[in-house]
Formats: sequence, C-alpha cells, structure tokens
Amino acid sequence: MCGKVILVGAGPGDPELITLKGLNAIKKADVIVYDNLISKDLLDYAKDNVELIYVGKRKGMHSFKQEEINKILVEKAKEGKLVVRLKGGDPFVFGRGGEEILELKKHNIPYEIIPGITSAIAVPEVAEIPITHRKVATSFTVVTGHEAEDKEKKQVNLSELNADTIVILMGITNLEKLVNDLLKNPKRNENTPVAIILEGTTKNQKVIKGTLGNIVNKAKKEGIKPPGVIVVGEVVNVLN
Amino acid sequence: MCGKVILVGAGPGDPELITLKGLNAIKKADVIVYDNLISKDLLDYAKDNVELIYVGKRKGMHSFKQEEINKILVEKAKEGKLVVRLKGGDPFVFGRGGEEILELKKHNIPYEIIPGITSAIAVPEVAEIPITHRKVATSFTVVTGHEAEDKEKKQVNLSELNADTIVILMGITNLEKLVNDLLKNPKRNENTPVAIILEGTTKNQKVIKGTLGNIVNKAKKEGIKPPGVIVVGEVVNVLN
Ligand SMILES: C[S@@+](CC[C@H](N)C(=O)[O-])C[C@H]1O[C@@H](n2cnc3c(N)ncnc32)[C@H](O)[C@@H]1O
Ligand SMILES: C[S@@+](CC[C@H](N)C(=O)[O-])C[C@H]1O[C@@H](n2cnc3c(N)ncnc32)[C@H](O)[C@@H]1O
Repeated sequence: MCGKVILVGAGPGDPELITLKGLNAIKKADVIVYDNLISKDLLDYAKDNVELIYVGKRKGMHSFKQEEINKILVEKAKEGKLVVRLKGGDPFVFGRGGEEILELKKHNIPYEIIPGITSAIAVPEVAEIPITHRKVATSFTVVTGHEAEDKEKKQVNLSELNADTIVILMGITNLEKLVNDLLKNPKRNENTPVAIILEGTTKNQKVIKGTLGNIVNKAKKEGIKPPGVIVVGEVVNVLN
Repeated sequence: MCGKVILVGAGPGDPELITLKGLNAIKKADVIVYDNLISKDLLDYAKDNVELIYVGKRKGMHSFKQEEINKILVEKAKEGKLVVRLKGGDPFVFGRGGEEILELKKHNIPYEIIPGITSAIAVPEVAEIPITHRKVATSFTVVTGHEAEDKEKKQVNLSELNADTIVILMGITNLEKLVNDLLKNPKRNENTPVAIILEGTTKNQKVIKGTLGNIVNKAKKEGIKPPGVIVVGEVVNVLN
C-alpha cells in the first residue's frame, strides 16, 4: 500500500482562486494538512471522512515546527493515505514547500506539486496594481520582509534591489525599517509610491496608498496588522 | 444594455491550472478574445454560441496591435456582451493587462480582473525548482529578456539585479547576451546554476540544466525554441 503527498497551493484568500487541479486533489484527499492562511471554505470540498490536520499558528499554543509537519506528512503517506498539503498562495513562494519535498524524497514517498496563485502577484492585482506595466515596470522583485525568516543566510538588503517594482511579503510589522532600507537605493526617494494591501482578495481587503515618505505614518494611523503585501514603485498609481 | 470585460489569467499551459473563478468566467462569456499561449482545451468550456476571437500571432500574417485588441474589447462590451479576455499565465505579468484596463476605464466599461498562475513561478515549480528556499533564496526577480519589449524606457540591466533567484521570460532567442549580462554581477559566476524550461507544465515540457558557463552551448545543441523560462541561481539544483 503506497501513499502519496500532493503539495497544493490554495491561492491568496478568495476560495475561487484555487486551481481546478488543486480542487480535484482536495476532493480525493484522505488527509488534509493545512495552514492558517488558507480559505476554510476550501475544506468543504473534501470527502466526508477526510482527516483534517491543522498545523498553523494557534493563539497561546506552540507553533508547529517544520520538522513536526514533515513527520506528519511522512507518517500519513506511509499509512497508504493520499495526503494533501494545503498551503496559502503558492507552495514555493516563501511556503517552505521545497523543504517538505526534500523530506519526502528522503523517505521515497511519491509526491506531486500543484502551483497556486501567489499573494505576491494576485493581492496587488485584485487591488488594481499591475506589477509590470509597459514603459513603467519591466521587472519586479519579491522579497521577504521578515528578518528572522532566515537568520543564518545573509539576506539580500532591500537597498540593493534594483527592480522597477518591489513586492514585500511578511513585512507589515517591520515597515519602518524596510522603508528606510528601500530609501537607500538611488532609484527610489520620498515620493516613490507605496501601497499596502491587507487581507487581499478577501471581503476584508484594505488598501493604503502613500509614498516612501509618508507610508509609515499612514500605516500607524490605520493600525495595520498582518497579513499584508507591500508594493513599491510607479505601478502603484498607474491604473488610477 | 451594459457589457463587461473580464480579464482572465489562463495559467501557464496545463489547462487544469486555471482558477475556478477563471473557468466560471469562460463558461458564461458571450465573447472570448484569446492569445496563442493559452491552452485551447479551455475553450471547450465555453457556451455553444460563444464568439471566439483569436488575437495571437499567426504565421505569415500581421500580428494584432494592442490598439486593435483594445478596440475589439471596447466594441464588444458596448454591444452589451460579456467579454472574457483570456491571457496566458497571469494578465499582469508581462501580459499588458494594465493597458487594456486603462482603455476600458477611458470608455467607462465595467471590468473585473481574475489572476492566473504565472509561468514565471509555476513553470520552474512543476520542473521541481522552487524559486525561494530557506537559506538558499529569500528573494527572486522576474524580468523580461526581450529587449524590444520596451524600447522607450531604459530597461533594468540584468547585471544590476541582485536577487538570489532571477527568472527571465521572453529570453530564449536572446540567451547569449542575457548570460553575459548576468555574469557582470559579482553575485554570479560561470558556476552559477541555470535551468531553461521549454513548454513548461505541458506534455512537451523540456528541461535543460547547466551553469552560466556552459548553458549557451547546451542550449545551442538542443536547438531551443520559445516559449521558455530561464531560471538562474542556487535554487536550480536544491531539490536534486
Ligand atoms: C509565509 S508567506 C506565504 C506566502 C504564500 N506562499 C503565497 O504565495 O502567497 C505569508 C505572507 O504572504 C502574504 N499574504 C498571504 N496572503 C495574503 C493576503 N490575502 N493578503 C495580503 N497578504 C497576504 C503576507 O505578506 C504574509 O505575511
Ligand atoms: C508575453 S509573456 C506572458 C507571460 C504570462 N503573462 C505569464 O504570466 O506567464 C510570454 C512568456 O512567458 C513564458 N511562458 C509562458 N508560458 C510558458 C510555458 N508554458 N513554458 C515556458 N515558458 C512560458 C515565456 O518566457 C514566454 O516568452
């Protein structure tokens, strides 16, 4: 009896932004291992006797470590189960999907990867910000704004990023430092447009627009909270 | 009688990589205006009496100019039709979706934007290359490799791009120059891994791996042809 793990990108929030292929995987799963950023509506498509395992953050309790998640995936697959690992956005955009694949390979467990709509592109998009636009932006960089994310590797400094559009994930609680770093690059200045989109593509979507000069104050006034995407560059106002 | 235009991202090639929302739009469309990179299987979902308008490249005939496409969208919507503008990948990733939205706004035509799975992320992903990976890549840049794409704007030079992973679209016919530019950045050298993925996520998918030092020769031997995605950085081999 041979199980399998399917990594599925759930999309950025709107449950209709899952792919057909991802939805079909959910429908046939024996076990679904899911995170906190996925739309719970997607779980309604699962079989009646599906086993649901939540591995996201829980208030007041310890968070699941990646090793614990890996262990669950391996164990359930070894029981012969069809396991869907359902992740917010796309599994390979700051989703640690690669680490899970490495673990599955180590245990010779069959796997499949189904891409998802990433918040990095779709959250600005649904807020009418195109990350590329002819004569305005012919390149974009997506980067994590969460320093702890990867302490051991010297992370790329935002000041070094020269693409026309910069998209920052996991940056909301670190906004002031990020803005200061961005301003160190000669391509940008106090007037460079910035947008912050909170809970994008959901009913609670909120968009705050400003400039590198005033966004920190604006954000403070609004009392912003994660999850949010920060977009920097002329594209922010191109469709206004 | 008031029409509407829905911009829909068709995904990178595999027809099952369209979103539920995109598929629902196709099912109810009166008119579908589509490009050459979309999966033709998606058109089978349309209504029997749908009007299909192909605006992609045609051998030996002139290509549609963006202005002509804009005109079709506006005219059909003004006739009261529900128009789906079906684009390969995501409409805002080198898809000129922003230009179409500006035109619709000018004519006060209602519109909606439905993101798609972009080839920039999903094509490497399905070839088992994660564009981010803990301790290996905490940033990625997506850039066009097609110089003519935007002559009037001084395009970002690849040598200036410092993200850990670089993804180049529309770069296949320009590979040698791109590789030379990439090598001018001190972060990269002859041993930096490169992958070229042709017709990704389709049955014809082909992956060529090498380094900045040898990829030009390898590509010549294989006689590569567009469409293809070029991925540069350590992530290329991280799941090997
Ligand atoms: C750990 S990362 C995972 C990203 C995910 N793999 C993706 O492709 O969207 C989580 C971050 O994604 C962003 N994010 C995800 N969903 C979002 C949403 N609906 N609105 C705004 N930001 C979102 C936030 O920056 C959040 O901190
Ligand atoms: C005009 S751009 C449009 C990109 C599209 N909007 C997206 O998000 O994927 C076309 C380029 O996308 C890339 N591309 C699209 N589909 C692809 C596929 N199935 N395999 C490899 N590359 C693809 C190629 O680099 C091609 O030259």
